[in-house]
Amino acid sequence: MPDLHAAIEQLRDDAAALFAQVRDATRDDAGVTRDAFGAKETAAGDILIRWCGAHGLAAGFDAVGNLAVTLPGARDHAADVLLASHLDSVPRGGNFDGLAGVIAGVLVLAALRQTGAPADRGIRAYGFRCEESPWFGTAYLGSKLCAGALSLADLEALRRFDTGRTLADHLRALGVAVASPPIGVPQIAPARIRAYLELHIEQGPLLESTDTPLGIATALRGNIRYPYAKCHGRYAHSAAVPRHLRADAAIATAKLIAYADARWRALIEAGHDDLVFTCGILHTDAAEHAMTKVPGEVTFSLNIGATTDAAMEALHGDIVRRADELAAEHGVRFELGTRVGTPATSLDPAIQAAAADAARALGIPARPMPTVGHDAATFARLGVPAAVLLVRNSNGSHNPAEDMALADFMLGVQVLAETALRL
Amino acid sequence: MPDLHAAIEQLRDDAAALFAQVRDATRDDAGVTRDAFGAKETAAGDILIRWCGAHGLAAGFDAVGNLAVTLPGARDHAADVLLASHLDSVPRGGNFDGLAGVIAGVLVLAALRQTGAPADRGIRAYGFRCEESPWFGTAYLGSKLCAGALSLADLEALRRFDTGRTLADHLRALGVAVASPPIGVPQIAPARIRAYLELHIEQGPLLESTDTPLGIATALRGNIRYPYAKCHGRYAHSAAVPRHLRADAAIATAKLIAYADARWRALIEAGHDDLVFTCGILHTDAAEHAMTKVPGEVTFSLNIGATTDAAMEALHGDIVRRADELAAEHGVRFELGTRVGTPATSLDPAIQAAAADAARALGIPARPMPTVGHDAATFARLGVPAAVLLVRNSNGSHNPAEDMALADFMLGVQVLAETALRL
Repeated sequence: MPDLHAAIEQLRDDAAALFAQVRDATRDDAGVTRDAFGAKETAAGDILIRWCGAHGLAAGFDAVGNLAVTLPGARDHAADVLLASHLDSVPRGGNFDGLAGVIAGVLVLAALRQTGAPADRGIRAYGFRCEESPWFGTAYLGSKLCAGALSLADLEALRRFDTGRTLADHLRALGVAVASPPIGVPQIAPARIRAYLELHIEQGPLLESTDTPLGIATALRGNIRYPYAKCHGRYAHSAAVPRHLRADAAIATAKLIAYADARWRALIEAGHDDLVFTCGILHTDAAEHAMTKVPGEVTFSLNIGATTDAAMEALHGDIVRRADELAAEHGVRFELGTRVGTPATSLDPAIQAAAADAARALGIPARPMPTVGHDAATFARLGVPAAVLLVRNSNGSHNPAEDMALADFMLGVQVLAETALRL
Repeated sequence: MPDLHAAIEQLRDDAAALFAQVRDATRDDAGVTRDAFGAKETAAGDILIRWCGAHGLAAGFDAVGNLAVTLPGARDHAADVLLASHLDSVPRGGNFDGLAGVIAGVLVLAALRQTGAPADRGIRAYGFRCEESPWFGTAYLGSKLCAGALSLADLEALRRFDTGRTLADHLRALGVAVASPPIGVPQIAPARIRAYLELHIEQGPLLESTDTPLGIATALRGNIRYPYAKCHGRYAHSAAVPRHLRADAAIATAKLIAYADARWRALIEAGHDDLVFTCGILHTDAAEHAMTKVPGEVTFSLNIGATTDAAMEALHGDIVRRADELAAEHGVRFELGTRVGTPATSLDPAIQAAAADAARALGIPARPMPTVGHDAATFARLGVPAAVLLVRNSNGSHNPAEDMALADFMLGVQVLAETALRL
């Protein structure tokens, strides 16, 4: 489709302008804040709705509040392809996480419209609200509303951390009817969705470190997490108590983390190369600790991720076993607390192959790689064939320094369009 | 000296009453607080002065503010034996740390007086002020004033953490002339001190765990400390960044501490059985850390102690070398910060032998063991033959739960008296 690709290329300046307008409208003291089910998220959607209107697309917030865009005259039919990502950001986040995928979908539709594509191709774009978990303590709320995966009870139970108001309140303020339907009912039946395609910036440095503009996600990492683990030992005088009479919570915990790292490395070498392990929180008790006291308590988090449950369970099992050994060896007690997490989610091999073919046909380097959770997970878990296309990005995500080059983004939009057409 | 030992035994109820009176006079909301160069420390001294007066001893605060007790009619002579410890406590501390040794000295003098011992035996008791470091940020101030080891400049430079007033101010308020003499001049020339003997509760559980009432200190542990070490890594997304692209400050620090523990154990097995190692403070940055972030910074303390500098330096060298290796392996940077500490201090073998003989003669079990720093260090470092007699105590020290049995204390007083007489 040379016409389509040329049409996309001609929208480069529009893309740059859209990123800039949304940034300006949602700027905070550091980066951007697009509050979920709130004013700044809506402001981002409004900018896109105006642009879509000016480019001949049908766009608006749908019955559950998400931005929905179609070619004019699109009717319900049996084979929708969704191009989607999210409008919200984390507090004091960056401009590209989420927004890039929404703009990408809109650009593809505008280019299709310009090249006279028939509306019954069934390609739709979405800008979901509230993908980020800080706002209501859980992720993917907009895509779950779209998929009918939230109940009315969920809407009353979830509260935004800053406003203290329920999700139901926030939805009502946006004009959404808090009733069934539309709540608890899919906006598009999962069985009718031919494919869910999401373009998203890479949140890590792998593409940058391998000098590759695009990645094709092989799976969404799941996780096994202990947000609030503790090691209980016994406070004691740092000089007066010999080693064999101590119950040192810091040494026992340090040995557990050192062991987890060793096992992590071994499992990577054994082929589980997408396994990740993080102890992000680690602290002795500030109210009690001192340089001259053997620490009697350490609090820490454990966070294991992988694209296969088997890899996660292998590391998890090793850590739990080792904690028992260390408890016996050091006279401490590990209390790992509540295990939480999500299973790993496979992505559709056929779409991955289509995306790889599309990139190859366009001469754009793209490498297979695992990724983290995205709105794609909502649909993949309902059995919808889903895929995520990653765009090279510097400085990680969820911070004001996110830095995706426009040139890389436009390569991503080309591959997204080509993949959608091949499905 | 059967008479002397019987006289000591008859003072058992007096000992109990003195501990109770001082506790009542210095009680706080949790345990006791005897503020250094302050009202409660003075109150403790006043109780002992009154008791000494009633028992025919000459007692008062001396020219530099310490409690000094002698037999009546004692003159300067060439062979003083000092029985001493300290009057102050840490804030919200226990009743026995320090006070036990002061009461012990006073009881020995009272028993000597009762049995008609000639005043020229030259046995003196001291209750030093401010042995504990929290008050002015440094330890042994009362014994250093006694030894002439503080200058007028020191007195102006040191400030109490809670009052904000200088040591000079505090001394003036106690009626001490802040001038030389008495400041900077020994109250008793070190060369004239035949022996310094200190009874002190054990601050650890070794005597309790070995069912032994008394310990004879072999040496005072020195220390090598890094109060404020840091590991600098790089914050990153916990799921999106693969292991080889991380600079994880928590894993690197955990591995350093785990290694220190392994080396500690090996050095103990190689014969350095008094070596201690503590990482009492360990924390990721609460303003930045999250379960879902690779930690970019960890703050921690290192505290090595031993009765020989060689053992401390061996473990210290191992830790520093390993930090360099881990920095290279994990892409982090260790910044250990300022090294502080004190050298290990030997105690006099002849007095240890005399104390062991005394205990044996009295049929009281006593075991040789290392101990932590005490006022004895002030005198030992000036070349005075010094010894520390430890009394079994539960629940550690520096807390309201300190628990020394009166029966053990009285055994300690007997051995203290017998040792003093043998010198």
